[in-house]
Order: sequence, then structure tokens, then C-alpha cells
Amino acid sequence: MKDQAIAFITEAAHRLYDPAIRKLDIDTKEDADDLVTENDFAVQRMLTKKIKETYPTHFVVGEEGRHDKSTPENVVTWYIDPIDGTTNYVHQYMNFAISIGIHYEGEGKVGVIYDLIADELFSAVQGEGAYLNGKKLHPRRPVDLSRAIIGFNARWLVGRADATTKEVFANIVRDVRATRSYGAASLELAYIAAGRLDAYINMRLSPWDYAGAMVLLSETDAGCAPLFDHDTLFKDSCSMLAGEKNVFEDIYQRCNADQ
Amino acid sequence: MKDQAIAFITEAAHRLYDPAIRKLDIDTKEDADDLVTENDFAVQRMLTKKIKETYPTHFVVGEEGRHDKSTPENVVTWYIDPIDGTTNYVHQYMNFAISIGIHYEGEGKVGVIYDLIADELFSAVQGEGAYLNGKKLHPRRPVDLSRAIIGFNARWLVGRADATTKEVFANIVRDVRATRSYGAASLELAYIAAGRLDAYINMRLSPWDYAGAMVLLSETDAGCAPLFDHDTLFKDSCSMLAGEKNVFEDIYQRCNADQ
Repeated sequence: MKDQAIAFITEAAHRLYDPAIRKLDIDTKEDADDLVTENDFAVQRMLTKKIKETYPTHFVVGEEGRHDKSTPENVVTWYIDPIDGTTNYVHQYMNFAISIGIHYEGEGKVGVIYDLIADELFSAVQGEGAYLNGKKLHPRRPVDLSRAIIGFNARWLVGRADATTKEVFANIVRDVRATRSYGAASLELAYIAAGRLDAYINMRLSPWDYAGAMVLLSETDAGCAPLFDHDTLFKDSCSMLAGEKNVFEDIYQRCNADQ
Repeated sequence: MKDQAIAFITEAAHRLYDPAIRKLDIDTKEDADDLVTENDFAVQRMLTKKIKETYPTHFVVGEEGRHDKSTPENVVTWYIDPIDGTTNYVHQYMNFAISIGIHYEGEGKVGVIYDLIADELFSAVQGEGAYLNGKKLHPRRPVDLSRAIIGFNARWLVGRADATTKEVFANIVRDVRATRSYGAASLELAYIAAGRLDAYINMRLSPWDYAGAMVLLSETDAGCAPLFDHDTLFKDSCSMLAGEKNVFEDIYQRCNADQ
């Protein structure tokens, strides 16, 4: 199924090399959202069709409309994000990805994330390790928070979070070595598996944003869970913390300390 | 001189393809800083030597020690940053660059910035336009702040800035379409010229961080100045605002409003 997922993604990627997007004048993007939506739907339709043709009993859950409403435990479910990082796609033509996560009975089995501009293919199969362009990724080893580089968007400091959470976030930002923000969750999670980031925080993600990356994280001994203990993964929008386990634990404790 | 600068940078880039850095295990970077410092100095020495051999009367100012103390107005000065984004270099092996800016009589004449991993060469000559890998970059056209993507690090919201500035920053982060942070100023400034970012804010940069990018910005009709009107460029560490002019003006007014 990993090979199938890679084949599907590679074919879908060609659809995203859209000359209309690439040539889009960078300052006249008034109609850009329509173009992106069109491509988003087209890639999702293409992927869904291929999955259903090859595996008629499998479920498909995607960003652009749920093709299958429920995801029973005993059915293989494909979580697909046709374009993760749509703003980057239209505005930057870099740092966007197609993401596929195949889950079964509550466990991530296969994850494939493809950054087509950088030509970086992240892939993992449960129990068989994670790879970047065919090169095996090493399990993550402990990093101290003070030396950590975390994926963290400035917006989490000024958004709707409560004042206590914002203060916790502010202290984390002060205490780490550096923060980065690329604007594509699947890639930022894959970067943890690849050792480029040590943690990643997001206040609201959907299942297709992380279903693929979760397998990469688990295969590189990195942690991945809702940031707050009252949240639940795969239930619509959810907060997310992922990271090398030492950094993960440190951030998790800070965010869930009794107040 | 642009061709010379490109030739120098291309040769120096080979020095940064350091197998010791590339193979550095991502979780054991205790000695990494030494390796980076070594490469930083080596590239600066290499560039300085080449510049001085070719242009004996020119001045060289670089991050790793000033080779020439003063920079008189009537002398051509090369501002060089051998590795902009050293943290990225050692930790991510992506998003770092070599930057050269050639200035004369207070004006930027040539700018060359090379991201060797992405193989993106940004270059500009005063009056002759800006280029990315040989392709001409269009002048920036007006963007509304609400649609702008700005390079802004979360740290500016929790750092040493005064409370008023932080509140202004928080409102900017709330009002823009998105923020990004890549951790290499020369690239983030070049991304404005390339239309990938609409503005960039930094609380402290040194001349070699922006001397090259300034030429790219000016050749694409983008603005570039100290963020605060009491700061002065090229005087040691300085705040920096760069951006498409509409976004630039909006942010500049907010940061310098009478209080």
C-alpha cells in the first residue's frame, strides 16, 4: 500500500504543477483562491478515484469534503490532504505538500508526504522505519529544550488561546534555541522525523493534516498527541504537539500543569 | 563585479558542502558550533582573499571579524556573510545562504545571495533589475496588509521590545494573512523581491545581513529601512523593516506612530 500511495501521490503531483498557478503574477492574486480550490478538489477527486478503484472497500477522508462519513475501526481509512499549505502554494509556490495517511483499527500504518517543489518524499510504514527520498531516518535522540528548534507560528501568541496558555507559550518561545514557521503542518511534522525541527505546536489541525506524518513520527521515536489533555485526535479540529520525546514531555508538562 | 561576486560565491559554496556537517547526527550537535565557526571563518577568509586579490583597493566587511575597520564613502565596500543562518546550517542543512553586497558612496550597487541547498541564486545590479536563477523578478505591486504574508519570528513578541511595540506587533500579526519564519535574514529579504513574502521584520540585523538583499529590494520597488525612525542602517546592529511599499508603509506608520 505504501508503494501504491507513492504512485498515487506522484501522479497527483503533476496536477499541482499548474502553469496557471506558477505564472500567477505574485501581486495579482485576487482570483488565486479559486484556482487553488479548483486544484485542491481536482487532486482530491483524482486520489479518491484511484484509491477506490484499487481498494473498493477502503474509506477515504479528505480535506475537500468527506467522501466517507464514518470511519469504522475495522475498515482501512485513507486520510488525504491534496494540498497542505494552500497559502504557500498560491503565494510562494514552495513549501506545500500532498499528504496521505493510511490507518487501520486506530493505528497509523502508512504515511507518505511529498513536497513536490523541493522534491522531498517522506514515507513510513509501521514497524519498517521512516525514509526521506529512500534514505532511512534515524530515531530521534534526546534534545534539551534550550537547544531545541520548534515549529511555532507567532499567531499562537496573539490568538484566541486563554491568557495562561499564551504566557506558557511565551516562556517556551523564550526558552528554546529558535522558532521557525513554514506554514504546512504535514511538512513541519515530517521535519521532526528528519531532525530539522525538534517540536511542533499547532492550536487546530484536522486529521488529514497529521494522519500521514504520525507514522513518520512514530517510526523515528518522536511523540505526537493533542497539546492539551482535554483534546482528542481525529475528532474534527484538535490542538497538536509533536516532538522529540524529551522536548515533547517538557512542552506537554508546561501546557498541562495544574493551575 | 556582479559576475565576480557570483564566481566567488559559487566557489565558496563548495566549502559549505561539508561532509562533517552533512553527516552530523542531528541529535548530537554538542560540537556542532565549533564546526560551523570553523566553516564560517574559512569561507570568509576565502572570499576576502579573492576580493583583495582581484580588487586590492576595495574594503571588505564581514560577520567573522571586520577586515577593514572603516568604510569611507569613496571606497568600494564588500559586505559579506559567509553563512547567513548558521543555526539552520548545522541543525537543518537547509535555508542558509552566502550573501554579498557591494556598496559605493552609500548606495548598494550589487547584491548576490546564494541558497546552495535549494540552488537558488538571487542577484541584482543597481539599475539593471533583480534575478532569481537568471529569471527576471517583476517589480512588486501594491498588496493590502490583510492579504500580506510577512516574515516575522515569534520571538519578537516575547523579547526585549517595550510593551507598546509588542502590542503593535501583536496587532500586525493578527491583521496579516499569515506569518512565516525561516531563520535566515538575507533569504527572507530576497523572498520579498521574489514575491514569496510581502514584508519582513527583524529587531536587530548587521550590515552584512542586508547589504546584498537591499539591492534586490530596490530593484523590485520594495522598501527597506530601519523599523524605528531613531535607528540608522549600517551602524552596527539595527532594526529592519522591508516590504512591498504599501505593506511597508502600513507597518512603518504603526511602529512609528506618536504615542
